[in-house]
Amino acid sequence: MTFVAGLDVGGTKTLGIVADAAGRTVARIELATRAGDAATLLGFVARATTAIAQAAGLAVTELAAVGVGIPGLVDGPAGTVRNAVNLGLDGASVPLGEHVSRAAGVPAVVVNDVDAAAVGASSLLGRPDLAYLSIGTGVAAGFVLDGRLRRGRRGASGEIGHLVVDPTGPACACGQRGCLEALVAGPAIARRWPSANGVSPATALTAAAIAGDADAVALLTAIAGEVAAAVTLLALTVDPDVVVIGGGVTEAGPALAEAVTAALRARAQGSALLADLDLAARLVLLAPERAAGAVGAALLARQAVAV
Amino acid sequence: MTFVAGLDVGGTKTLGIVADAAGRTVARIELATRAGDAATLLGFVARATTAIAQAAGLAVTELAAVGVGIPGLVDGPAGTVRNAVNLGLDGASVPLGEHVSRAAGVPAVVVNDVDAAAVGASSLLGRPDLAYLSIGTGVAAGFVLDGRLRRGRRGASGEIGHLVVDPTGPACACGQRGCLEALVAGPAIARRWPSANGVSPATALTAAAIAGDADAVALLTAIAGEVAAAVTLLALTVDPDVVVIGGGVTEAGPALAEAVTAALRARAQGSALLADLDLAARLVLLAPERAAGAVGAALLARQAVAV
Repeated sequence: MTFVAGLDVGGTKTLGIVADAAGRTVARIELATRAGDAATLLGFVARATTAIAQAAGLAVTELAAVGVGIPGLVDGPAGTVRNAVNLGLDGASVPLGEHVSRAAGVPAVVVNDVDAAAVGASSLLGRPDLAYLSIGTGVAAGFVLDGRLRRGRRGASGEIGHLVVDPTGPACACGQRGCLEALVAGPAIARRWPSANGVSPATALTAAAIAGDADAVALLTAIAGEVAAAVTLLALTVDPDVVVIGGGVTEAGPALAEAVTAALRARAQGSALLADLDLAARLVLLAPERAAGAVGAALLARQAVAV
Repeated sequence: MTFVAGLDVGGTKTLGIVADAAGRTVARIELATRAGDAATLLGFVARATTAIAQAAGLAVTELAAVGVGIPGLVDGPAGTVRNAVNLGLDGASVPLGEHVSRAAGVPAVVVNDVDAAAVGASSLLGRPDLAYLSIGTGVAAGFVLDGRLRRGRRGASGEIGHLVVDPTGPACACGQRGCLEALVAGPAIARRWPSANGVSPATALTAAAIAGDADAVALLTAIAGEVAAAVTLLALTVDPDVVVIGGGVTEAGPALAEAVTAALRARAQGSALLADLDLAARLVLLAPERAAGAVGAALLARQAVAV
């Protein structure tokens, strides 16, 4: 029982890994997420657990535990997921941990996906104090502070995607208007810069900006400014050692990080406080192939069964 | 050496207390703050330390330590204060701890004033997990998370007063425009609702609103909405058990807290996420006479010399 699995269940796709006792990733899979109602989601996560065990050449019962990172508010002990709006579960309360434990026959630990990614990033980068800013189907942050994951009292820690940036902005799935998520998440970028051929909108946008398209440059600058506002928000609340940007948007490559860094420098020019904090130098981009969410979910699962 | 002192140096006034070994407050003073340049501030804090010792019937050298809470970014070990814009020290770096230790002859511990108030509030209310939202000459938050003060890596934790709420809003002393502080801090309320006779603007505004003045009701509603946005921001970042509102604005009494509670309820009606978090039930108003900042500064001073 030296192996643990980690799943990172996203709005569109799910990454799974199996880690050995030394924390090395020995198998990895990617699946299209199936969700939309509670029963569909429960069935999908149980099947994904079996699939990742098989990919490592194991029976699912040979896993010591599985960690499941999922978007939404998670009650740790019960593994209950609430308000997973990006999986179509707005308002529903789903006993995911209990169900997966029973269906797969292994202890299941359910955590917020961005909390899992923060723990994974902390481990992958060797940084005990960070905020992980996830920009993908949704936008949220996770915090590892002085080596400890901060979940918050109601599991809402880091749900900055639903802070209102522009009260007159587009409607958000959460019920408000002009949330950060409604401006810079993947679907928002797709709306602001429609792309074809299955290319991710963030990738299409940065490619067009690099090629010199003036509209693309203007939109990339605007989005970078909104992301810089989120980075500033994290610095002026928990003031982490570094801010790590992760999630699907990082597929667009370093051009996005460079645009965000430039936006942070521009803000600092007008403010002694921001200049002093030097946020541009404290930004790290973590590529999606590092699978921080699945790595962190596996780590949290191992910690939970070791206690 | 069983006594410690705590000073809470505000933009307009300074509160001092002396606490005995059991943590009981045995003396208390209030002074008008004198600042504007580094030398004036250093001299004032040294004199205030002597004054609070005398108020307790002690020589200043009979204090085991003095804790000094001060607005600005504080480097703990050196006791160096940076960017204390509300004391007129924008950009300056002042070795306050070293100076007070030498001038007063007692170990001096310098902390951010709102961090000190968060520690004081945690002790006074018996709540190990909270955010303290201070609204006075400035606006900032302090965090005690799972019983531990979160200072942040650059001492900027909780500096939410300088988050931009309205980019077209009034200029802020920090160099940006439309910061939260430029909208709801004491001086901002004074600009939006000028009052005479030395009555605090927040008190004058709430009194007029209670008396039925339509303009006052509208402005109080607007300000309560801006404060509710700050409370929501704290919940969606660190998700503390409770949010405590403190600072000079609390002199206005319960009408302000009621208006903020109403604004939080109104926001929750449009959002399943916010409804789930029930922020209106997690709000506490702490009256200024509890002197949370000075109590916390004294506690932090005792902890520092006990190590």
